[in-house]
Amino acid sequence: MGRAAVLGAGSWGTAFAKVLADAGTDVTMWARRAEVAEGISTDHVNRFYLDGIELPAAIRATSDYREALDGASMVVLAVPSQSLRENLEVWAPSIGAGATLLSLAKGIESGTLMRMSEVVRDVTGASESRVAVLSGPNLAREIALGQPSATVIACADADRAVELQRACATGYFRPYTNSDVIGCEIGGACKNVIALACGMASGLGMGENTNASIITRGLAEMIRLGVALGANPATMAGLAGVGDLVATCSSPLSRNRTFGEHLGTGGDMVSAQAATNGQVAEGVKSCTSVRALALRHGVEMPLTDAVHRVCHEGMSVPDAVGLLLGRRIKPE
Amino acid sequence: MGRAAVLGAGSWGTAFAKVLADAGTDVTMWARRAEVAEGISTDHVNRFYLDGIELPAAIRATSDYREALDGASMVVLAVPSQSLRENLEVWAPSIGAGATLLSLAKGIESGTLMRMSEVVRDVTGASESRVAVLSGPNLAREIALGQPSATVIACADADRAVELQRACATGYFRPYTNSDVIGCEIGGACKNVIALACGMASGLGMGENTNASIITRGLAEMIRLGVALGANPATMAGLAGVGDLVATCSSPLSRNRTFGEHLGTGGDMVSAQAATNGQVAEGVKSCTSVRALALRHGVEMPLTDAVHRVCHEGMSVPDAVGLLLGRRIKPE
Repeated sequence: MGRAAVLGAGSWGTAFAKVLADAGTDVTMWARRAEVAEGISTDHVNRFYLDGIELPAAIRATSDYREALDGASMVVLAVPSQSLRENLEVWAPSIGAGATLLSLAKGIESGTLMRMSEVVRDVTGASESRVAVLSGPNLAREIALGQPSATVIACADADRAVELQRACATGYFRPYTNSDVIGCEIGGACKNVIALACGMASGLGMGENTNASIITRGLAEMIRLGVALGANPATMAGLAGVGDLVATCSSPLSRNRTFGEHLGTGGDMVSAQAATNGQVAEGVKSCTSVRALALRHGVEMPLTDAVHRVCHEGMSVPDAVGLLLGRRIKPE
Repeated sequence: MGRAAVLGAGSWGTAFAKVLADAGTDVTMWARRAEVAEGISTDHVNRFYLDGIELPAAIRATSDYREALDGASMVVLAVPSQSLRENLEVWAPSIGAGATLLSLAKGIESGTLMRMSEVVRDVTGASESRVAVLSGPNLAREIALGQPSATVIACADADRAVELQRACATGYFRPYTNSDVIGCEIGGACKNVIALACGMASGLGMGENTNASIITRGLAEMIRLGVALGANPATMAGLAGVGDLVATCSSPLSRNRTFGEHLGTGGDMVSAQAATNGQVAEGVKSCTSVRALALRHGVEMPLTDAVHRVCHEGMSVPDAVGLLLGRRIKPE
């Protein structure tokens, strides 16, 4: 496949660069901050976002995106979903004409309600066949530690999906190919919202039955939305749906779950943010854009609606969880 | 609905009797051992299987099954799956001709490869419309503590499902009706096997990504088997499939997960059994009968096969987990 550029040096971008290097792919990372890039290149560690993990010496990093993109035939987009467009507008002129664009971002863009692959195509003008997404039960730290994990690479162009698969397959990281880009992206966007709801219930002291019920109801509305948008329900029953959802909703490492838990124990948005390294959880923004997308397509998403109301309309967590669990009895 | 008899006083039978009583249904429990029945009737506690939970005073218990069944219009079958037939053969003559039979048992009968509702019909001669099953993310102790939970009641007769729903709906227990008995039963039988696999991986030190990958692959083979038997895949994406699976595979309270974990940390079948109160986990028997059912219908179930090999053919846990996670890269 040639050289890969990983743009974004957060925990997932860094862990995925390690996967690529371990798979024998030539990788250059771009980090916004020079000190992050320097730490990766010189000390082989990203102490800001993936501390304590030794990175392969083969990974080079730079804070000059032109340097990272020069000659790259595979461009990995690893920045938060809501900042993808602004970053990509800067990078686009430096991306090679035939390069494959692989999105790791999970979310729906506020305002435009575009999926990440749509944002990529909108900004770069790339054809559908050049844009791929990667999604699955992929907690960054576990992957960086070499824990066995599987993932899905989706692309309309099956050959390109296989090329990407080869570029990142290692003993501990198993990529499966799929042609359903929409299903993978809807799964990735919805799971963060559902993880917020699981965290909220957990914060209220509820146990595994409740957590599993919320995951199941969340999956049902994820599938409804995906199907309305043209996705294959089997994708959402797979690694990029159920798999990612279960990992995110079960793990204490998940920022979205932790954020919801702080709200559930009585914290407000500000203190919840402080508890997650000062970063707003992705689901806090996604809940509003996923909800708007559902409204546009006439899809009922009561869980997403409840999360939105807590995060943006002042509803209390007990009221929201009660609303979710207390719906009148009826057929499944 | 009239009076209910709950036959079996294990943790789930006891918790479900509490749900019925809390829902205002008149309940009599049958316990095999007189001391268990007496503790429930007199001290309102089942200190053998659900210690520390105060039971409603309205629950009567007896060790005479005829007394429990006398006049019962709803008969709840709450004994382990492999002992359902022998128990039911004794009980059958005392069961009222029009009574509804509700199975809580989860498994596939060894030898006959029958689902529990098939065993019920085989022994009692009851029509399809009289037999229902209940399944969902229902860890007994959490329900007994009044934690919010949802479940599915499946019956070919929709009116009967609604009657059952009314008999057990409380503020903390939400039953949904469904007509897909096969889907609910396959979900319930397969999840114990998958929980064993999750426990094994966890015992080997693997984390949330691996756990989520195993759940996802397990769900895929559960759906394949269900569909081959005539189930609706949506049932298995719902509370009786994903919901029950996630609760069982996540909870430290799950006997199957705990059993697998002991095998994963190097224990043998005997020590694993000792670690789960001397009881063999349900999945240890189910893996063999589910595997045989899959073979009969030409369905590939590599995860179930690996669990069977560990439990019954001497395969090591690392070999089995390696087999599961190390399959060659291919389309999802």
